[in-house]
Amino acid sequence: MVDVTAKSVTQRSAVAHAFVKMSPRVLAAMRKLENPKGDPLEVARIAGISAAKRTSEWIPLCHPLPLTHIDVHPTVCKNGVEIRTQVTAAAQTGVEMEALVAAAAAALTVYDMCKALDKGIEIAELYLVEKTGGKSGDFRRDDRRHKNRKDQVTKRSPKR
Amino acid sequence: MVDVTAKSVTQRSAVAHAFVKMSPRVLAAMRKLENPKGDPLEVARIAGISAAKRTSEWIPLCHPLPLTHIDVHPTVCKNGVEIRTQVTAAAQTGVEMEALVAAAAAALTVYDMCKALDKGIEIAELYLVEKTGGKSGDFRRDDRRHKNRKDQVTKRSPKR
Amino acid sequence: MVDVTAKSVTQRSAVAHAFVKMSPRVLAAMRKLENPKGDPLEVARIAGISAAKRTSEWIPLCHPLPLTHIDVHPTVCKNGVEIRTQVTAAAQTGVEMEALVAAAAAALTVYDMCKALDKGIEIAELYLVEKTGGKSGDFRRDDRRHKNRKDQVTKRSPKR
Amino acid sequence: MVDVTAKSVTQRSAVAHAFVKMSPRVLAAMRKLENPKGDPLEVARIAGISAAKRTSEWIPLCHPLPLTHIDVHPTVCKNGVEIRTQVTAAAQTGVEMEALVAAAAAALTVYDMCKALDKGIEIAELYLVEKTGGKSGDFRRDDRRHKNRKDQVTKRSPKR
Amino acid sequence: MVDVTAKSVTQRSAVAHAFVKMSPRVLAAMRKLENPKGDPLEVARIAGISAAKRTSEWIPLCHPLPLTHIDVHPTVCKNGVEIRTQVTAAAQTGVEMEALVAAAAAALTVYDMCKALDKGIEIAELYLVEKTGGKSGDFRRDDRRHKNRKDQVTKRSPKR
Amino acid sequence: MVDVTAKSVTQRSAVAHAFVKMSPRVLAAMRKLENPKGDPLEVARIAGISAAKRTSEWIPLCHPLPLTHIDVHPTVCKNGVEIRTQVTAAAQTGVEMEALVAAAAAALTVYDMCKALDKGIEIAELYLVEKTGGKSGDFRRDDRRHKNRKDQVTKRSPKR
Repeated sequence: MVDVTAKSVTQRSAVAHAFVKMSPRVLAAMRKLENPKGDPLEVARIAGISAAKRTSEWIPLCHPLPLTHIDVHPTVCKNGVEIRTQVTAAAQTGVEMEALVAAAAAALTVYDMCKALDKGIEIAELYLVEKTGGKSGDFRRDDRRHKNRKDQVTKRSPKR
Repeated sequence: MVDVTAKSVTQRSAVAHAFVKMSPRVLAAMRKLENPKGDPLEVARIAGISAAKRTSEWIPLCHPLPLTHIDVHPTVCKNGVEIRTQVTAAAQTGVEMEALVAAAAAALTVYDMCKALDKGIEIAELYLVEKTGGKSGDFRRDDRRHKNRKDQVTKRSPKR
Repeated sequence: MVDVTAKSVTQRSAVAHAFVKMSPRVLAAMRKLENPKGDPLEVARIAGISAAKRTSEWIPLCHPLPLTHIDVHPTVCKNGVEIRTQVTAAAQTGVEMEALVAAAAAALTVYDMCKALDKGIEIAELYLVEKTGGKSGDFRRDDRRHKNRKDQVTKRSPKR
Repeated sequence: MVDVTAKSVTQRSAVAHAFVKMSPRVLAAMRKLENPKGDPLEVARIAGISAAKRTSEWIPLCHPLPLTHIDVHPTVCKNGVEIRTQVTAAAQTGVEMEALVAAAAAALTVYDMCKALDKGIEIAELYLVEKTGGKSGDFRRDDRRHKNRKDQVTKRSPKR
Repeated sequence: MVDVTAKSVTQRSAVAHAFVKMSPRVLAAMRKLENPKGDPLEVARIAGISAAKRTSEWIPLCHPLPLTHIDVHPTVCKNGVEIRTQVTAAAQTGVEMEALVAAAAAALTVYDMCKALDKGIEIAELYLVEKTGGKSGDFRRDDRRHKNRKDQVTKRSPKR
Repeated sequence: MVDVTAKSVTQRSAVAHAFVKMSPRVLAAMRKLENPKGDPLEVARIAGISAAKRTSEWIPLCHPLPLTHIDVHPTVCKNGVEIRTQVTAAAQTGVEMEALVAAAAAALTVYDMCKALDKGIEIAELYLVEKTGGKSGDFRRDDRRHKNRKDQVTKRSPKR
């Protein structure tokens, strides 16, 4: 485990992304809320938030961090569900893994909710979008790399 | 949560896949084991196994299942690390999510171990490869969809 | 811990109940979904399901049980939110605690979602409604003891 | 999840309450420590403390908080067991949920320890008694609302 | 992780042992229950039971097992506290690790409760006493290896 | 739970030790990495780190602490495996239990990896080596008490 004892506490944030590729048929079924398990996007949101808080249990060498904000934002697009997460903390190390874990858990939950309709659903583009804070400086991914998402059709309720 | 009370216990297995895209520079550094956190592939293997056992904690509507085998197998390829997982249980529902969660946790751990070298590493192709057992029948993904992996260069030690 | 080694595995089920007493003002705000944290009833449902699966972590002397079904059903009433849970398993001991833990976690989550509106919200009538299976025989609570709930006004979506 | 990033860290405390209604017969058996599982009040105390530390795992939108003190204090009364909990932390958000979770887990543990004697035991009056600290100001519940507790007959050992 | 899929479910049990070496002064203080944290032996008992249930979270390659009985039995001796644990399950693999984890957690909890009195307390003789069930046959440790324990002076309440 | 609210946050560290006594035959097998579960020392290292982070879940009255460094360092000796752990945090209470829990989990994992070869392996000398920080002052164990370890033969890779 990296020793962060001597680092100073600074404000950290990270944004991560995941994309759940889905066929129009599955997307349509999902949007009609006919799923017997509940609203997939809301369950995915909760799953992402819950997982982010426990990142240091999933990822062996992550430090436990006192997160002050976790936002998991799923959006229905023409060809799938885009997950965007944001995590914030005042800490001695960054929250990149927390944002990525939230995105992964949310995406896997969408899969779980829809797998009865299509077991072939693929999760792709799980990556860090940006981070701020810390000595290594800020990072911002080149947006042109986003290749899967087509025009989104449904905006979820405003940010929470 | 889907009610599986009336289902019979049968042998279930699932194979899942994830790919961590890495540049030759990061791959080379990783393979020299110069990483200060330990051997990334071994830590990823443990992370995947540990996460699979707790799938019902990460994915809200998954049933707790008595897994009898979890295998997490990372392979260094020319352009990244391929993760392949296999999970088995005698259960009333399938172990697809357990295999996928193992693959996601292992891939995210590889990211965590290498993010000091490159924060832009992307995880892709997180999907179910096959499942057997259960009333819905067997599933096998069309292999031609594997598009990222180039010829592998290093075979990890034999299956555990 | 009670030794259940010699008991035979039989089908077990339990139904539990909790009531979150709320003023008309808070109920109205909650039903308009103006809550910045999301839909309280859906978050409560997920919280209850997740907690039930981990009952043996919250209650020191509970056995870990392979639950096959968990249903958490919140209903908006005139004077609060009624939580009704049902849990099923084939096991050597009953699932009463699992049903009660689900009801408690769901009720506390409703409190958490609404506490910005009223910190004085009280949770009451947390009890077992019925259990079936096991050597001690079935149990069914006398319904007349339900005293808090007035006529319900909103039926949640059908059972999941 | 509410964003508390911009809030300042202040001293927070919360007191919560729960009441486990029990018949004289069950109370008498419990006090004779004839219970084969151990001393119910001591197990309940430990259960409450352990649960409070993991509140952010029970309640999906709670922040993980660095608790500095948790006290769970069960008192045998004429008609049941009263649970009183107190939680303290220096944090950016309050510890109300932690105190309530401790009270709920302790009360449910008393139920678990005594359910072989009476499955009809009911948990009531789970509420916040007071909170201090934070921008929303202090809160103190009107004591006259405590209706179930009769004169207590056994004082537990002094506060820990 | 060892693949136990093809193994048959049989009755398994394991007994483990740990010894917490303590000076007469610390032992005397502990037995007077002057410890501000509660009765160390009762807290240790609960800690051991709780830990055993989660063995597969502590020990990376352990399978999750449906334990049917856990007994943690601390005994005050002239020169310390002896912990003896017993675990039972019907499973495809043994419960040795569960018994050892229970003993370790109980012993560490005794240390935690008494460390204000003596930080130099040592835990020793953490080993498997016996196991039964499974294809590898029964195991029983040679008792003469127990070297630390002197005559016990206080028998704890009868087995639970 | 001890109330540490009024204590000031200071830098804390603790070093702990455990020894897994092993016969030359088992040691030789372990060092040849013929173990089907993986490299025992690396798995033990991860197990220790993961366990330390969750100390407040295993030990009922431990406070949750924001650890900034965990080091688990197994060394192969002539007659067993020595585990040495170091934990650091800026906190209101010490990290002794975290270091001891890491040592115990690592030692138990070595046992788990080697128990197919010898079920009689014993874990001994689980103790605190030193602690620094906090009002009670520093502690350093008298080294002559280390009795089991003979000359070490294999140094593990440099500290991580």
